[in-house]
Amino acid sequence: MSILVVGSVAFDSVATPFGKAEEVLGGSATYFSTSASFFTDVNLVAVVGEDFPKQHIDFLQERSIDLSGLTFAAGKTFRWSGEYGYDLNEAKTLDTQLNVFANFCPKLPEQYLNADYVFLGNIDPELQLEVLKQVVRPKVVACDTMNFWIEGKREALITTLKYVDILLINDAEVRQLADEPNIVKAAHKVLAMGPKTLVVKRGEYGATMFTEHGIFSAPAYPLEAVFDPTGAGDTFAGGFMGYLASVGKYTDAAMRQAIIFGSVMASFNVEAFSLDRMRTLEFAEVQERYRKFQLLTEFGGID
Amino acid sequence: MSILVVGSVAFDSVATPFGKAEEVLGGSATYFSTSASFFTDVNLVAVVGEDFPKQHIDFLQERSIDLSGLTFAAGKTFRWSGEYGYDLNEAKTLDTQLNVFANFCPKLPEQYLNADYVFLGNIDPELQLEVLKQVVRPKVVACDTMNFWIEGKREALITTLKYVDILLINDAEVRQLADEPNIVKAAHKVLAMGPKTLVVKRGEYGATMFTEHGIFSAPAYPLEAVFDPTGAGDTFAGGFMGYLASVGKYTDAAMRQAIIFGSVMASFNVEAFSLDRMRTLEFAEVQERYRKFQLLTEFGGID
Repeated sequence: MSILVVGSVAFDSVATPFGKAEEVLGGSATYFSTSASFFTDVNLVAVVGEDFPKQHIDFLQERSIDLSGLTFAAGKTFRWSGEYGYDLNEAKTLDTQLNVFANFCPKLPEQYLNADYVFLGNIDPELQLEVLKQVVRPKVVACDTMNFWIEGKREALITTLKYVDILLINDAEVRQLADEPNIVKAAHKVLAMGPKTLVVKRGEYGATMFTEHGIFSAPAYPLEAVFDPTGAGDTFAGGFMGYLASVGKYTDAAMRQAIIFGSVMASFNVEAFSLDRMRTLEFAEVQERYRKFQLLTEFGGID
Repeated sequence: MSILVVGSVAFDSVATPFGKAEEVLGGSATYFSTSASFFTDVNLVAVVGEDFPKQHIDFLQERSIDLSGLTFAAGKTFRWSGEYGYDLNEAKTLDTQLNVFANFCPKLPEQYLNADYVFLGNIDPELQLEVLKQVVRPKVVACDTMNFWIEGKREALITTLKYVDILLINDAEVRQLADEPNIVKAAHKVLAMGPKTLVVKRGEYGATMFTEHGIFSAPAYPLEAVFDPTGAGDTFAGGFMGYLASVGKYTDAAMRQAIIFGSVMASFNVEAFSLDRMRTLEFAEVQERYRKFQLLTEFGGID
C-alpha cells in the first residue's frame, strides 16, 4: 500500500566536526519519502519556492515518489542551517528561514484522498489535523512533532494526537509532552492521549516502542563514522512506515520489524551528508544490515 | 566454579529525588558479591573497620559468600556519600572517607589462590595487579576501573589491562581511556590494550559488548521506578561473572546471556536503596525477568 506524507522540503546548510555542506537537499518530507520509497510508493505533500532546482525534482522522481502534491509557490524555498559538536546528538540551529513554508496550507490532490498510510511530518499540529481531515478513513496514521509545538501549540497538538495511531518522537519530547521524567511513566501518559503506539527515538542509543502489548527496545547500529545526523529521525520514520505499508499489517510483530528497518535506514543515512547515502543505497544492503541487527541483538533462552 | 572478588566494602549515604539512606551497606565488592551469589560461590577480599556491624556480616554469610578474605583493621570502614538528580544517570560525590581502605593491601587466603574466575573491582590498578599476581593461572579475569585511575594511574592501569580478559566500564570511561569520541573506534583501541572482551555499561540505555566475534547490544530493563542507581554497575558485573562462572564457559553465546543476567540483576537492585532489593529477591524472579528481556528485544527474521 502507498503512503501519504506531509512535511517540509528544504535546503539545509550543515556543519559537523567532519565537514560542511551548503544549501543541500533536506527537509522532513524529503528524508521520509526517500527512505520509505525503498519499501513502497510514496505520495508527497509539501511546498517549495521558485529556486528549487530540477535536479532535486529528478532525484525524487527517480525514487518513484509521486510529486502531484508538491506545490511550487512564489518566493524562496525553506532554509535551515545548523551545526553539530563532537557528540553529534543534538543540532544547534543557526538560522531558520521559513520563506514559502510560512504560508503552507496543504491541499491534497484528488488521487491522494483515499490514502491508507499517512505520515504527518513535524509541522504545525493545526496543519497536521487539516491534512488528516482531507483523507478519507486512513488505515494507519503516524505523526512526528517537536519541542517548539509541544510548548507553543500544546492544545492543538493534543487534539491532533487523538486521531493518531503512532507517535514517533525523541526521549526529551516524550518527557516534555508528558511532563514526567521517568520514560516508562511518561510513555503511558502519552499513550493515554490517543496514540496506540509510541516510538521513542534515542539517537545513538536506538529506539523503544511502547504499545498495549508491551515494550520493544532496539539498539542503534554501531557505526565507526557518523558524518551527519541530519534527517536521521525522518529517515527512521520512513523506513518504519515504508515497511509497515509494504506488508500491509499493523501488528506488534510487524512493528518490531519496522523499528529495525527504520534503524537500518537511519544508520545508512548518517554515513554521508544530506541524502547522499540514499543515492547509492541498494535494497540488498538494507536486507544485509537487517540481518546484522539480528546478530547484534540475539541471545539464547534459558531452561 | 567459584569467583574471587576484590574491591570495597563500605558505608554509603545516598540522596535521590525519592528519598535518603544514611550509612547503609555499600561498596563495589559488596554489590558484586551479593549479585554473583545468586549464581555461584563467591570468595570476597576486602577490608572493613572495627565499626562494621555483625548484621552486615550475617547478611553476606547468609548469601553463602566466603569471608575468609575480609580483613578487620583498626579504624573506621570506608565511607562514601553522594546524591543524584532527576535523571539519576550520574552521582555527585559529596564526601569520600577512605579510612581503613587507605592502607588496603589485599592478601589472599591460601584457599583462594587457585581461583578460576576473578573480578578486580574498581580499586587502584596497582592493587588489582598485586591480587592477580597471587592467583595461580585463573581462567577468566574481569576488571572495572574509573576516570580517577584512567587519569591518575594510566600507566599502571594499562599494565593491568594486559592481563585482563574482560573489561567492564561505562561509555565515558571507554572514550577517556581510548582518547576517542566514537564508541566503536574507542572500543577497538581498548581491545588492542589487552582485554579480549569490552563490556560498555550505558546505564538506562543498556550495555554493549565488543569482542573479536563482533558486537552485542542489550537494552536496560524499562523501569517505572528507579529509586537508587548506586551499585548498579557492580551488580551488573556480579550477574555477568556469576552466570559465566556458573556455566563454566567463556564463549560468545555464554557472554551474551551473561550480559542479560547482569542487566536483570542491575534492574532489580535499583528498585530500592542499598542492597535492600537483593535481600528479598528469589532466583525465580531473576529467571522471569530474563524471559521478559527476550520479549523486550525479539523480532523476526526476513526472507
